[in-house]
Amino acid sequence: MATVTPRTPSHVPPVLMISESLTTLLRHTIDQKTKPLGALGKLEDLALQIGSVLNTDRPVLTHPHVLVFAADHGVAGHQPVSAYPQAVTAQMVFNFLQGGAAINVFCQQHDMDLFVINAGVNIPHFDPHPMLWDTSAGKGTADYTRQPAMTEQELDACFRAGKTCVQKVAQRGCNVLGLGEMGIGNTSSASLILHLHGGDPLSDCVGRGTGVSDEGWERKVTILEKAATRHQNASSPQEILQAVGGFEIAQMTSAFLEAYEQNMLILVDGFIASSAFLMAQALNPHIRKNAVFCHLSEEKGHRLLLQTLGADPILNLNLRLGEGTGCPLAYPLLQSAVAFLNNMASFESAQVSGKSDS
Amino acid sequence: MATVTPRTPSHVPPVLMISESLTTLLRHTIDQKTKPLGALGKLEDLALQIGSVLNTDRPVLTHPHVLVFAADHGVAGHQPVSAYPQAVTAQMVFNFLQGGAAINVFCQQHDMDLFVINAGVNIPHFDPHPMLWDTSAGKGTADYTRQPAMTEQELDACFRAGKTCVQKVAQRGCNVLGLGEMGIGNTSSASLILHLHGGDPLSDCVGRGTGVSDEGWERKVTILEKAATRHQNASSPQEILQAVGGFEIAQMTSAFLEAYEQNMLILVDGFIASSAFLMAQALNPHIRKNAVFCHLSEEKGHRLLLQTLGADPILNLNLRLGEGTGCPLAYPLLQSAVAFLNNMASFESAQVSGKSDS
Repeated sequence: MATVTPRTPSHVPPVLMISESLTTLLRHTIDQKTKPLGALGKLEDLALQIGSVLNTDRPVLTHPHVLVFAADHGVAGHQPVSAYPQAVTAQMVFNFLQGGAAINVFCQQHDMDLFVINAGVNIPHFDPHPMLWDTSAGKGTADYTRQPAMTEQELDACFRAGKTCVQKVAQRGCNVLGLGEMGIGNTSSASLILHLHGGDPLSDCVGRGTGVSDEGWERKVTILEKAATRHQNASSPQEILQAVGGFEIAQMTSAFLEAYEQNMLILVDGFIASSAFLMAQALNPHIRKNAVFCHLSEEKGHRLLLQTLGADPILNLNLRLGEGTGCPLAYPLLQSAVAFLNNMASFESAQVSGKSDS
Repeated sequence: MATVTPRTPSHVPPVLMISESLTTLLRHTIDQKTKPLGALGKLEDLALQIGSVLNTDRPVLTHPHVLVFAADHGVAGHQPVSAYPQAVTAQMVFNFLQGGAAINVFCQQHDMDLFVINAGVNIPHFDPHPMLWDTSAGKGTADYTRQPAMTEQELDACFRAGKTCVQKVAQRGCNVLGLGEMGIGNTSSASLILHLHGGDPLSDCVGRGTGVSDEGWERKVTILEKAATRHQNASSPQEILQAVGGFEIAQMTSAFLEAYEQNMLILVDGFIASSAFLMAQALNPHIRKNAVFCHLSEEKGHRLLLQTLGADPILNLNLRLGEGTGCPLAYPLLQSAVAFLNNMASFESAQVSGKSDS
């Protein structure tokens, strides 16, 4: 099994030890701003969370990054699992490197640094590129309808790779990190992860991905039922990832865990990113306090997955693109939370009257 | 009655005449971007709307502005209608001018120009300030539980003022405008507007405003029932605004209408701004196509008001602050829509394969 072990409850990170007084201070600061109590809604929750994670009542978001993990999936050979051919994974990596994808546009808009990780794309090689990090665990996973998606060694390599990527980002001064993915067929992995982990009926976990038809959806469910039956005994996150995961999803799982260790705010994108987060949270429940769920995807299983996590996403824009696109789209709201916390006047400083008795 | 007359169906703005071919072009451009069809959800709708309103497939948002209209309300003398004393309206205007309010912080974040309009604050005078425009229609409205909130002449003055404000903004090169408000007691006006216009039960239209208690809410409903009974025959937008409106709401109604005439994208904030939009749309249904509903407020009547309008808001952050704060918070998503439309690669330009038959 992979080298990540669940955290024991006795492991309490330093930040938690001072959290009560800091929380009180943050709550007081927020409540003294010139607005009715609670009137900034979820932005107040975000301000409280960001201050708590960064352990200060004057938080600053520094060097925001998005990492997009790309990999191929053996199951994509079964045509109906995706509306697009497997070659699109590599083609989209080139598109990322050329700056033409949605994630490029949105990261540029919000001044977020973007790197692309070759976690296991089925291509002979990529030429070196300043935006590309190569941590490939293989030329795509095996077809999990016939065998485990990856070996134990491949899973170990993925866990090491995800950790290394986040350490590199930390060295660049980042304290807020979004993770995205690209991999034709990877909604299927996410569906199986959700099904095997939570026990929900498979058909509730399977959506249309990039847009399969009604008939295609039924065939997708049939194919995934075969995989679910084969791997029904997988129960730990490592077992599930090895059985039905993708290289990108395994690396993201590890990256989420390391982002917590590096005390970063963690931006969780859509269905596939959330499935990696689900695995990461199962390995270390503490990571939850650093996580911001950026949006509710239109991909069918995402609502169920967020319910499983008890997560309340910030945006609901009917997105179903992946690539981490929800992260830069939600990011300005984190900046707004920090901005009001740091820059709004208080009732006292602005000489505004408080609430009457009513 | 006021000088704004409803538009006849025969008035078709020039932009509508070319809309069909432009819509086809925009839809094609959006669909050729390197993403699955429809995968950017509401951002695609926004891109289509923005391109249609600005009448181009390469739209640019220029000189975004927020105007905050402030005024006092005679009904605020009945303590339970607001949790804050009337003096807070003027105090918050000073806070806006000093840059300390939430709307200042969010406008600064997104480089939106902010101006504050004294539409009728109950204060002897404001000293001149570069951010302040004075269009005061009086020192607050009359108490509408006893008489109409304003005279016909005051309503006329408000309509002229709102129009002038937007013309000034247009001269500054603005093509995207958000309107906000500040006025202790103005959720009560918005509730009555919704009730008198749509006929919904008053108690469904009345919320807690800035935070009245359970008991305060019941007293607020009782007071507003008295006003609703007195003004039950008010039916046209002008009659309703004169009966129960605020000076800020009447000026915003006119400002919305003029923003449409100036071919601007119109950002609609929360409950009170939406009540002004409701009146404006009743006067000219065409304005709807320019409107972006920024968020669903936590103020009770807003959901009902948006349902009345058939509007689908972009954000749902449990905000209940007003000031126009929803406008700058939603604005980066408009920028994202424009950015992907203008800057993303197409399948062809990026040499990415299209959809398989599945």
